[in-house]
Amino acid sequence: MQGDGEYNRSSKVQAAGLSPAISLLVNAARAFELPSDAEPIVIADYGSSQGGNSLEPIALAIQVFRQRLGQKRPVAVFHTDLPDNDFSALFRTLAEDPRSYLQNHPNIFPAAVGRSFYEQILPVNSVTLGWSSWAVQWLSQAPRSIPDQVQVAYSRDSATKAAFAAQAASDWRTFLTHRGAELRPGGRLIILTMALDDSGSFGYAPVLDAMYGSLLNMVETGFLAQDEVARMTIPTVGRSRSDFLAPFQASSDGRFAELSVEHLEIFRGEDRIWNQYQKDGDAEKFGAQWAAFSRASAFPTLAADLRGGRTDPRTEEFVSGLEAGTAQKLAMAPAEMVIPLAEMVLRKE
Amino acid sequence: MQGDGEYNRSSKVQAAGLSPAISLLVNAARAFELPSDAEPIVIADYGSSQGGNSLEPIALAIQVFRQRLGQKRPVAVFHTDLPDNDFSALFRTLAEDPRSYLQNHPNIFPAAVGRSFYEQILPVNSVTLGWSSWAVQWLSQAPRSIPDQVQVAYSRDSATKAAFAAQAASDWRTFLTHRGAELRPGGRLIILTMALDDSGSFGYAPVLDAMYGSLLNMVETGFLAQDEVARMTIPTVGRSRSDFLAPFQASSDGRFAELSVEHLEIFRGEDRIWNQYQKDGDAEKFGAQWAAFSRASAFPTLAADLRGGRTDPRTEEFVSGLEAGTAQKLAMAPAEMVIPLAEMVLRKE
Repeated sequence: MQGDGEYNRSSKVQAAGLSPAISLLVNAARAFELPSDAEPIVIADYGSSQGGNSLEPIALAIQVFRQRLGQKRPVAVFHTDLPDNDFSALFRTLAEDPRSYLQNHPNIFPAAVGRSFYEQILPVNSVTLGWSSWAVQWLSQAPRSIPDQVQVAYSRDSATKAAFAAQAASDWRTFLTHRGAELRPGGRLIILTMALDDSGSFGYAPVLDAMYGSLLNMVETGFLAQDEVARMTIPTVGRSRSDFLAPFQASSDGRFAELSVEHLEIFRGEDRIWNQYQKDGDAEKFGAQWAAFSRASAFPTLAADLRGGRTDPRTEEFVSGLEAGTAQKLAMAPAEMVIPLAEMVLRKE
Repeated sequence: MQGDGEYNRSSKVQAAGLSPAISLLVNAARAFELPSDAEPIVIADYGSSQGGNSLEPIALAIQVFRQRLGQKRPVAVFHTDLPDNDFSALFRTLAEDPRSYLQNHPNIFPAAVGRSFYEQILPVNSVTLGWSSWAVQWLSQAPRSIPDQVQVAYSRDSATKAAFAAQAASDWRTFLTHRGAELRPGGRLIILTMALDDSGSFGYAPVLDAMYGSLLNMVETGFLAQDEVARMTIPTVGRSRSDFLAPFQASSDGRFAELSVEHLEIFRGEDRIWNQYQKDGDAEKFGAQWAAFSRASAFPTLAADLRGGRTDPRTEEFVSGLEAGTAQKLAMAPAEMVIPLAEMVLRKE
């Protein structure tokens, strides 16, 4: 849904929580009990987008496998995302980016799967290591529109909140069910995703306020109709510790879909854009960078709810106007963003 | 390189030689000696484009495997093409087209590989059945531009002809080398591609005349510069029977890259557009359909040689003008197109 490589260039925020999750992935690669036969190593990257944030973790995991298995054992890497993802940008990144795991290693075979991870999309018992970064917060669908915000966490409508909570619980179980099938016994899945912190906060309040305020301004100027903004929804959720654990705690052995939780931590990601602002005091840059993040990650979803849908002639003006409005509001009062994240390691028994 | 789904809609010509090649694929699926273990079945579709012409052959091959192995054995399908291929159109076709092999079968796992088939792009000994339709006539590169045509077969420049012949021979060996590595022992590769017929003809003379004539007209009107047309090249070749066999005949056991030739036939594809014209006498439709084929298969390549490259502001006008000019010339003198094709079955020993 994003323009050519746009997501790769505006993913500074998503890089925030990567380092600790990468350590978990590397440890999982070290701990994996090697199959005795010549079975290929399979790494799955669930919700890859254009691949920019996948290069480093996957390169490091491959390095561990190479140390353990030598150069000859084939390693297959499946990057999965929705059909409309820009897979051409992904393959160009893999071919050209100096950080690409193809640069220094022979016998690595990347492929893409353009199907939703709310289905089984890889063969049963085939995945050695799974990785999913900044992806499983996206619901399979918005169960309804949100009357008073674009993000359910800041809605005050209790029926809406309940509908999103039910969808989030159901999608989490569906996601686990299919990953449980796809992982091979002893395989591990590392997840980094949006979360609710221990006080129940979703975070991102300043940027979401600025975004929703800009949408309301667009209604005031007559650029958007009231019913268009009412439809606009970002179908993401933050899950709490107990939301993540619920499917596992429902069984006596702590397992769900043959998976058990080896590790779960809720932590606060670093706001790198804020840190930069602390150094340079450049409020406009602060606003522009958070607005660019919002544009790449959420605006295409919002634009699809324009009256004319994906081919609405206002799309371009809408996206650039919303980016400018969001940036301006943030620049007027820069504030550190709370970025609650969860990291998990799941193991198939 | 093509617009959204354009190639899928304009592939009537490529459907010409499909039926006999599909029979070869189905026979290969029947003949394959089943591995005793639970190894997955892997089908590779080399040069898939947007997948429209791959649905039927792969669905039929899967049907054979299902009859032999039941519903549970996973079947992986890799569709490969260059990074710029429209993989989103491919995945939408797989999800939505009623002819898709995903419609009636569980445990089928499609993936895409956005890398050139002039490299090894799948693990060694992994491919059960390979399929490559209307793809290997595309060279890895044009060795030079063609001074007096866009297709080397109709050039009179002997140095150019020699350079293309050398590139074609080298690319064919490279293609075979990598497919030989990727096929598993006993696996087969079925190829359908452009060829030279027994009189040495490449065919397609009327459409290539109309296309080149339209380009020269664009120089006369000043729309194109002389040097732009001189650069424009369609880097495809027809190979003769002896071209196809050369790598195999160079060795005493008739093998090359562990592959041997089980079947090779040069035949003439049916010109379905001409047949339609014979029925309805609609010369404009005849011209329009051949021009649409040319647009989908070759014009993006030609447009890339405009002075401004892929972002040249004349691109759209160039493509629609060339299509209109080609259609008009063909409509003035409809003639049956000679479509020389080769079908091959290669087996890994």
